[in-house]
Amino acid sequence: MPQHIVIMAGGKGERLWPLSREGKPKQLLSLGGEKTLLRKTFERVQPLVLPQQIYVVTGSDISEQVRKELPELPKENILVEPFPKNTAPCIGYAATVIAQKNPQAIMVVLPADHSIADEEGFRRALRFGFASLEQHPEFLITLGIVPDHAETGYGYIAPEQPICGRDGFSLRKVKAFHEKPDAKKAKKYIQEGYFWNSGMFLWRVDVILREFGAYLPLMHEHLLALNSTLNRDRNAVTDFYKNVEAISIDYGIMEKAKDVAVIPASFGWSDIGSWDSIGKILPHDAAGNTVQGDVVSYESANNVVWATEKKLMLIGVEDMVVVEGEEAILVCPRERSQDVSTFLKKMKKEF
Amino acid sequence: MPQHIVIMAGGKGERLWPLSREGKPKQLLSLGGEKTLLRKTFERVQPLVLPQQIYVVTGSDISEQVRKELPELPKENILVEPFPKNTAPCIGYAATVIAQKNPQAIMVVLPADHSIADEEGFRRALRFGFASLEQHPEFLITLGIVPDHAETGYGYIAPEQPICGRDGFSLRKVKAFHEKPDAKKAKKYIQEGYFWNSGMFLWRVDVILREFGAYLPLMHEHLLALNSTLNRDRNAVTDFYKNVEAISIDYGIMEKAKDVAVIPASFGWSDIGSWDSIGKILPHDAAGNTVQGDVVSYESANNVVWATEKKLMLIGVEDMVVVEGEEAILVCPRERSQDVSTFLKKMKKEF
Repeated sequence: MPQHIVIMAGGKGERLWPLSREGKPKQLLSLGGEKTLLRKTFERVQPLVLPQQIYVVTGSDISEQVRKELPELPKENILVEPFPKNTAPCIGYAATVIAQKNPQAIMVVLPADHSIADEEGFRRALRFGFASLEQHPEFLITLGIVPDHAETGYGYIAPEQPICGRDGFSLRKVKAFHEKPDAKKAKKYIQEGYFWNSGMFLWRVDVILREFGAYLPLMHEHLLALNSTLNRDRNAVTDFYKNVEAISIDYGIMEKAKDVAVIPASFGWSDIGSWDSIGKILPHDAAGNTVQGDVVSYESANNVVWATEKKLMLIGVEDMVVVEGEEAILVCPRERSQDVSTFLKKMKKEF
Repeated sequence: MPQHIVIMAGGKGERLWPLSREGKPKQLLSLGGEKTLLRKTFERVQPLVLPQQIYVVTGSDISEQVRKELPELPKENILVEPFPKNTAPCIGYAATVIAQKNPQAIMVVLPADHSIADEEGFRRALRFGFASLEQHPEFLITLGIVPDHAETGYGYIAPEQPICGRDGFSLRKVKAFHEKPDAKKAKKYIQEGYFWNSGMFLWRVDVILREFGAYLPLMHEHLLALNSTLNRDRNAVTDFYKNVEAISIDYGIMEKAKDVAVIPASFGWSDIGSWDSIGKILPHDAAGNTVQGDVVSYESANNVVWATEKKLMLIGVEDMVVVEGEEAILVCPRERSQDVSTFLKKMKKEF
């Protein structure tokens, strides 16, 4: 079966505010490197498929930037969402496009803004997934990450016994998905052998479209309409997005479908969900400070400090996040950096 | 006796860095008001003397800004130091200029960058000083501030019994000057009735020049040379500054002279020596945050936050200083804000 890869690049960039912001979401940042996260995501799958088998779903506000970032990508493989409606419409749209080429294709869904340390490990996991789908084409597969700490910022997956295994990988039926836990629950989940929900999926395109029919029947109707108008009506995509509800693939399908499986893996994954996680992913100095830009720190430890235009001086500061974006500056304890997007929404409402 | 007022406006502006900086020292900032500290200092003494009796000693780098700030001041009353040499040369230079007009004049010396809440109380203390000098012309008088807390950022003055008193003021001989104490010593000083050393002085100009002769004889010789060349040699001032040592009036004369007296007073004085003191002087919100500019704070208390160009967001931050200057950003705990100038010097050396 041919494989197609869909990169979801529609994030709003609130969690790494103020470095990320409207018009410059996380996937278009280069965090500690020269390449953007989107570019890295693209290059990471290049050994697996041809550029014409890669699709990027993104918003109209940044589609031009995406095109410039990925000049190898055929222009028609950039699928532009007129407005964001969470992940289910995005995946449905991409599945419809792929199905027109090859209804039995395997479709991989990847967020554009994750960090992966062991790229070959990641590809090996996907290859095991491809092989698993040859044997068990009915499954919706999610990549589960073996936790290395009791993270409260991720959802968890409770697995059952392996269905099959090879090369150190196994396919296990999913018993249940769990929301982001508090610290106590996170510890319990780890003890019980749960995995982090990475938001990376693979399945056959005909299978996921059938599941839309089963669990999101209204959206499935709109997908059928999209399928029939896509190549002749220039408003087809806009009409589809106008008509469908905003819902995640997790809530809309994965948590309800019967044949859902997980491939546990450890390839140094992080969704870079907060400034605290940046501090965990990127290198730090002897005092534990992760710094970028023109930063001077005295008697300061375990901070995440990001300077963009100005010099940043810390004296006697510990366990803090200090980030200078182009338009704003954020200061908060590392342990509060998960709350940034919440307060950002509040701020936008209030001011 | 006529009175002349000398405003020392030569500060380098390191302690309120990064808002203050080279070329924009503290005296040229308007902190929480529309007028600069220099302008406020000038206006504060206007009810006492005519503009031609006010002198401002300042550096060549900011003399033009000083002139613009004080258009009422005769141009020749701006005394420009070619380079900074601490307070003794500055005071000797001004005393020489005043002595040429009136050798028996009273001379008041005031820093340009202090905050005074009760301006009439301040002028009443000076008027008492003028009266005291009529009776006791031999004294070098310093204004001592009655402490309202055990501050470690100021020097202290140990007084003896009053020599004379009137209108709630008294003149008391100084027993000793004490350096900035640690917290324990500061408490002891307060219990023993010591006063803060404000760095504001008054004396007869002939008396202070005589004391230069007694305790800084080399500088006195240069002052005599300055006196004889001032009006005919355009290099006179530069030669004087080249020749003299950099020394403070406190260390050079006040701590050694015999007839030194203090007038204790309480007029809401602060030398605004740190960002912490800014938080104490300026108004704060219900959570104790002193903010300026475009600041948004959530679940944050007792911070001093200064935004200049960018939006500043605090989440869960307590007892911190966050200041965005034009070129740099400072983050430190309030209790460390005394150390800013120390680390600034270190930074300039290292980078």
